[in-house]
Amino acid sequence: MAKRISFLGPSGTYTEEAATRYDPEASLVSCSTITASAQAVISGDADEAVLPIENSLGGAVAETLDLLIHQGELQIRGEIVLPIHHCIMAKHDTSPADVTVVYSHPQSLAQCRAYLAKNYPNARLIASLSNSAAVGEMQSSEETAAAIAGRRAAELYKANVLDLDIEDNPSNATRFVVMAHTDSQPTGTDKTSLCFDFDRDAPGTLVIALGEFANRGINLNKIESRPTRMGLGRYIFMVDIDGHRQDAKVADALAALRGLASMLKVLGSYPREVSSSI
Amino acid sequence: MAKRISFLGPSGTYTEEAATRYDPEASLVSCSTITASAQAVISGDADEAVLPIENSLGGAVAETLDLLIHQGELQIRGEIVLPIHHCIMAKHDTSPADVTVVYSHPQSLAQCRAYLAKNYPNARLIASLSNSAAVGEMQSSEETAAAIAGRRAAELYKANVLDLDIEDNPSNATRFVVMAHTDSQPTGTDKTSLCFDFDRDAPGTLVIALGEFANRGINLNKIESRPTRMGLGRYIFMVDIDGHRQDAKVADALAALRGLASMLKVLGSYPREVSSSI
Repeated sequence: MAKRISFLGPSGTYTEEAATRYDPEASLVSCSTITASAQAVISGDADEAVLPIENSLGGAVAETLDLLIHQGELQIRGEIVLPIHHCIMAKHDTSPADVTVVYSHPQSLAQCRAYLAKNYPNARLIASLSNSAAVGEMQSSEETAAAIAGRRAAELYKANVLDLDIEDNPSNATRFVVMAHTDSQPTGTDKTSLCFDFDRDAPGTLVIALGEFANRGINLNKIESRPTRMGLGRYIFMVDIDGHRQDAKVADALAALRGLASMLKVLGSYPREVSSSI
Repeated sequence: MAKRISFLGPSGTYTEEAATRYDPEASLVSCSTITASAQAVISGDADEAVLPIENSLGGAVAETLDLLIHQGELQIRGEIVLPIHHCIMAKHDTSPADVTVVYSHPQSLAQCRAYLAKNYPNARLIASLSNSAAVGEMQSSEETAAAIAGRRAAELYKANVLDLDIEDNPSNATRFVVMAHTDSQPTGTDKTSLCFDFDRDAPGTLVIALGEFANRGINLNKIESRPTRMGLGRYIFMVDIDGHRQDAKVADALAALRGLASMLKVLGSYPREVSSSI
């Protein structure tokens, strides 16, 4: 039986594209929010969920980080890096010169700002809830409209692609995590995600905590902070390190960190697709 | 002449409330975006700008962080902490039992979710662009509407407050920064904000960099990471430390950090209103 993967819909979103790239055979379950995608796995309606976690231009996706921190049932078992290439599309009888309005998600409009200013200087830009919704709005618009979305949305909605790769910054990419009831077995090139916090007023503890990794030669990939919801100035730290939680030196470092932190949650170990060293 | 302070409008937003608390005598300049508020200071239309930078529940305000990183003309010269207390308000002839729709900014609706579920279980929730806009939409609605906004919005729009302090989490507070052409003189209880990044693949450098503060007994208040826009896995770190950039040990630590970082920008020193130790 094909694996069932939940994703942030509707059909044609970049999250669906990431899910398809991750497992072309999977049966996809469209969900209306990131939280609902994870809930589908918890309730058994899906086997795995694909969630956007960071974009190279926009930064962290707060809803996914908060979900990882506050839920306790799912683990990260994979990551997917998807280069984001925007297309501008219209109905088949539309000529670019006649376009008076362009629909897209606000983040996509922002990522194509220079292209639009050059090529569609007089078009009004209208925000849609998703890139897929933008294509639908373009098709039902009473004006001569265009929409910005991925190539997959153009195929699904049978729209005519006017131009490809219109993003201003060619390094536009989104990282997704795959969540499930269990994480992954060691492969030799893995990454582990974790979150932790400290009691109030523990000066220098963050440096000591990060030192537990550095001193063991464990590479730190990223660090994010999120509010604890207990007042300003209290944070939960989210860290990605190289290595699997079953690796001896990673297990050692996590044990040492457990002694420093008031909360430590290992969010999962999984094969890494992208690495960096900070 | 009264100081001119630009803020994210329209009138009645929490940012306006923060600006008024910071300087009750100031003449306020309403701007339509965070970037426009800063631009008003650069162009000379305002003396200072008040910008939201983090909320105790929602976390960092990415637009403000990116503005701080990518602009080079303004410095942070102050911070303001505003407790956020939401009110629910309606027209004077509206009875709470008749309310069928509630307007507010999505973040405010989320912050009052439990209250609304208990007290307005059948009302539809509709997103507005700002709390102030929500009050206007409530007043021109054809349905029996209510709106969630601050007490100041109720006064400005002469709405009837149905209930006070309806936020689910009482520790809801927003921190704002005050930006101007210069930062502040030392007061003895100051904070310094800075941002920096490293060349690609510099393992352990973040720990060494933060150690420059910890080893000198300089307290770290917070750390945020933002994308460099040069691809996944490259980050700019934003750090708040205790002390003024003119303090000898802070100046020493900044000099040491300059030797490690490929970019270091001191965003300003200013009297601190809130402190924490990580």
